[in-house]
Order: sequence, then C-alpha cells, then structure tokens
Amino acid sequence: MPPKPRSMDVTQVTEWQNGQVSRAQDYLVAEEPLEIRIGRTPLSVTMRTPGHDLELTAGFLFTEGLIKKREQIVSLESGKTKAKAKTTPRQASGNVVRVRLKGVSLRPAQLRRNFFMSSSCGVCGKASIDAVMARGIRRPNPSFVLDPAVLCTFPDTLKAAQSIFDRTGGLHAAGLFDAQGKLVVLREDVGRHNAVDKVVGWALLSGQVHLPLADYALMVSGRGGFEIIQKALLAGVPLVASVSAPSSLAVRLAREAGLTLVGFLRGRRFLIYSGEQRLQPQKAAVVLPAGHLHT
Amino acid sequence: MPPKPRSMDVTQVTEWQNGQVSRAQDYLVAEEPLEIRIGRTPLSVTMRTPGHDLELTAGFLFTEGLIKKREQIVSLESGKTKAKAKTTPRQASGNVVRVRLKGVSLRPAQLRRNFFMSSSCGVCGKASIDAVMARGIRRPNPSFVLDPAVLCTFPDTLKAAQSIFDRTGGLHAAGLFDAQGKLVVLREDVGRHNAVDKVVGWALLSGQVHLPLADYALMVSGRGGFEIIQKALLAGVPLVASVSAPSSLAVRLAREAGLTLVGFLRGRRFLIYSGEQRLQPQKAAVVLPAGHLHT
Repeated sequence: MPPKPRSMDVTQVTEWQNGQVSRAQDYLVAEEPLEIRIGRTPLSVTMRTPGHDLELTAGFLFTEGLIKKREQIVSLESGKTKAKAKTTPRQASGNVVRVRLKGVSLRPAQLRRNFFMSSSCGVCGKASIDAVMARGIRRPNPSFVLDPAVLCTFPDTLKAAQSIFDRTGGLHAAGLFDAQGKLVVLREDVGRHNAVDKVVGWALLSGQVHLPLADYALMVSGRGGFEIIQKALLAGVPLVASVSAPSSLAVRLAREAGLTLVGFLRGRRFLIYSGEQRLQPQKAAVVLPAGHLHT
Repeated sequence: MPPKPRSMDVTQVTEWQNGQVSRAQDYLVAEEPLEIRIGRTPLSVTMRTPGHDLELTAGFLFTEGLIKKREQIVSLESGKTKAKAKTTPRQASGNVVRVRLKGVSLRPAQLRRNFFMSSSCGVCGKASIDAVMARGIRRPNPSFVLDPAVLCTFPDTLKAAQSIFDRTGGLHAAGLFDAQGKLVVLREDVGRHNAVDKVVGWALLSGQVHLPLADYALMVSGRGGFEIIQKALLAGVPLVASVSAPSSLAVRLAREAGLTLVGFLRGRRFLIYSGEQRLQPQKAAVVLPAGHLHT
C-alpha cells in the first residue's frame, strides 16, 4: 500500500454483495475540525479534510472578505509546526492555524462563522445577494472568453487529476483552469467550499497566479450553491462550472454580479445559467500555445 | 406546467450541446436563508430550501440537543403566517421562524451556529466525538435488526418518492424507513443536514412516530459526514445508510456510539462500517405483514 496521506484513513469494513459477506479494506476521506485563530481569538471552526491548511485559512480570509491582499497576512502557522512549552492540545493536534494580520480591523460581528449568513443577511435571498455585492466586488473580467469545446474537457481533466477521489469516493474537488483548458491547481476536501478556499489560498500564498483570478475558470464537483458563487466572486473568477445543479440563489447572485455560471457540465453538453457571452467558439489558431505559427 | 412549489424556481437557460445552442427551461432548487429566533434572540441562520420550515426548526433544536422533547416547544411560528403592524421585513419574507421554549436554559455559547463545532470542540476529531457523546446520548436500540435484502430496496424507494429531485437535480434527500422497508417520511433540501432535521422535526411535530426513532433506519442521498451521524444519534436512530462514502470522523463516531453505518448502498451491494450485527437476513415469514399466515 502506498503511504497514507493525512487526507485519508484506511479502515476495515464488511462488504455485503448479493448475500455474500466478506471483509475488505476501505479508504475513508479524513474529516477533522480546523480552528482558525486571529492572534488568540478564535475566528471559526470548520470541518475539513486535513492538508493544505494554510491555504485553506488564507483562502477563507480572502473569500470571506476579511483581507484584500496577501500583504495583510503577517504570519500563518499551523499548530503542528509549533512545539513550545505553551502549546495547547489543539495546537498539538495540528488542527489549529494561527494568523497574524495587519491593516485589518475586525468588527466583533465578523468574529463569527458564516459572516455572510449570520451577520448581515438573515433576511431573504435578495439581502444575501446585497450583502455580497456590498463587499465592493468588481464585475468579473468582461474580456475573459472560453471556448465551449475547451470547457467540455474540464471534467475529464479534473477527474484524472483527482488523486484521492477514486480511492475514497468522499471528496469534493475544485480546480482552477486557464482559458486553454490547462488545470492550474486542484484541491480536494470533504467540504466543497473548503476546496474552493484552498484553491484561492494557493493562489494567494504561492504567488504563481495573481488575484483577482480574472483569467481563470473555476470548476467544482457536485452542485453549485450560493456560497461557491460568493467565494468565486470575491476571488474575481469570471466563470464557474459544476457537474451538477446550481441553486436558485446561486443563479440570482451570478446574474446580478455578471459572473458566468455553467451547470450539468457532462460530456458534450452543459447548461448556461448566466453570462453566456463569455462562452464563444475560438478559431483554432487562438488556442495554440504561444510560439506555434501556421506555415 | 404544474404549480410551482416554494422549493423550486423555474428559469430560462441556454443549453449547449455538441456546438448547438438552444434556449431551454430549467427547474432550480430554491435556496434561501432561514433565521431561527428564540423569542427575540437570533439563534442561527442557515441556507435551506423553503418548505417544512417548522419541521426544520423543531428538528434542528432537537438534533443539536437544545430540546429533549416536544413539550418544550411552546410555540413555533413562521414569519409568513404573521402580518401584524410590527412585522419586520424578515418575517414578511417568510424566512424567519420564531420559537418559544420552556424548561430550556440556553447558555450564551449555545446561541451560536454549529454548536458542536464552534463551542465545545474546536479541537480534534476525538474531542468532536466526545462533545457529541457528552450530550448524554443513549446507545441506539440494540434489538433493531434489518434484513440486508430490505436495506437494498431503500435507494429505489427513496428515488421513486423524490418529487423534486428528478426535476432540479439539486436536492439532497433524507428518508426514514421501518424495518419492513416502508418509507415513513421523506424530506429534501439543498443541505443534507437540513433534510435530516426536517425528518426529525416531522417526527417531533406530527406525532406519527415517536422519538427516539429506535425502530427506524435513516437513509441519506450522497455522503455521510460527521454532522449526519451526530444528528441521527441525537434522534436515536440505530442505522444510517448512504449511497456514497462516509468520512473518517463519521465512522469513528458511529463505532464509538454503537450506531450501524452503511455506505455505498447501490444495487445489491453495500459496505458496513459499523454495527454489522444489526444486519441479518430474516426468515421470509418475519417480513410478511401481520395477518399473513403460511397455510
């Protein structure tokens, strides 16, 4: 057996098949709580799949609007990297990330989970949308255009890259693609929103791509709910695609904000719920890598 | 078109198929925030699919351990049913349920969302499990036994009963089954945990079955995470089945609490992660309805 990543557990199970019972080994997706602390103050606890915790934290801070740029993070440290006398059991478990920020004034109401939902907008769908829009998000890049034929390659690319999914069957994936269909980064988690936060956090911390993610499309496994669109908007992603259905509020938010939303992306078919002007067939020459010339 | 339930929206979409573009009508699962208030104090805001809001509220209060019995609910009213001078916009939108409780002392820490996660156990998996066990849950009914052949009928029964799923593709389902495979109640929601809360709330409010749900199995569409097992345990359900994978923490909690956990229930095959003693083939006579006799 290959070495077990932290994101996976192995367990013994009983398999029942047509009345035949046997013992089998099964891979489980790991699920553990992660506490994010701003200094000594707990900000949030979320159930997540261990791994890429710093990215998750950075992405969460960004997609919830608590920080606007990388430079506001002074330090990020996971409990596990620290083993001083004052280490608490939480830190020892590796399930705490402590953050130091600068140039950020946190209102008490922000020091709660699910900011968009619990603080400003326990009202109605319209208010939930207004609360996101009030964060001062910019209209996603109007000049980002994706070829539908390229979009149709996303699911297979994502699936091929999913290192864990095939073994546990329990993970959500989020992938960032460029307009040529290249998968730039893939992250997985028991929570779909966590997978998105890990992708955004990777962009923020790695510096390999720059925020806002104006030239990239985000693909998520499963369904596209309100939270996913909210996070994509905060990250400046112009196009979100999912293999399954979006919710009513996700569609309303995408339309209001001018984000392209695609659902039921399977094989050579998909539905466009919003922003179809970004999906246009390209001439063959356009999708060739730079340097290729017609002779 | 049949009348549109509150749980569904209809929208115009663009369908792309093999380069052909057409306009189509699509059903969307409705997603709106619901605020639960204890008296005048906001307790939680959750994104949910409208419909069965009182059940959702009652079930939530029960599965989060805030109430122990039906009688502690003095009144439950949805914003929509009230149209007095003092009605707030939230109430008018129908996205508020106001609850009056008796014999319940709420600690301030409980007046937050995700009690199990945010208050007591932002620590590690073990602590999350301990926090659930500390709620004084009883070991689920040891004499509940289910025939594997009956269990295998659950997915088809659930699917056949899902009135919305087939049209929107965006809903999670939770169904309560008896040991003979009869579907007692089905509830759907954008959030899997909400679907479970609606089932438990139905039991609590309808009085058609009694809590704890010691003689019933719970089936959920999709994956089986920690929260689902936690809620099932609080409701006293002895067996939880899902069509997909459970998480590591869900399996650990099920094993510690003695709950039977089944995953990947598809066709004539499933995996048993915990409590396999409750899955035993029955003699044919046992599963016949009362009154049937061999002649």
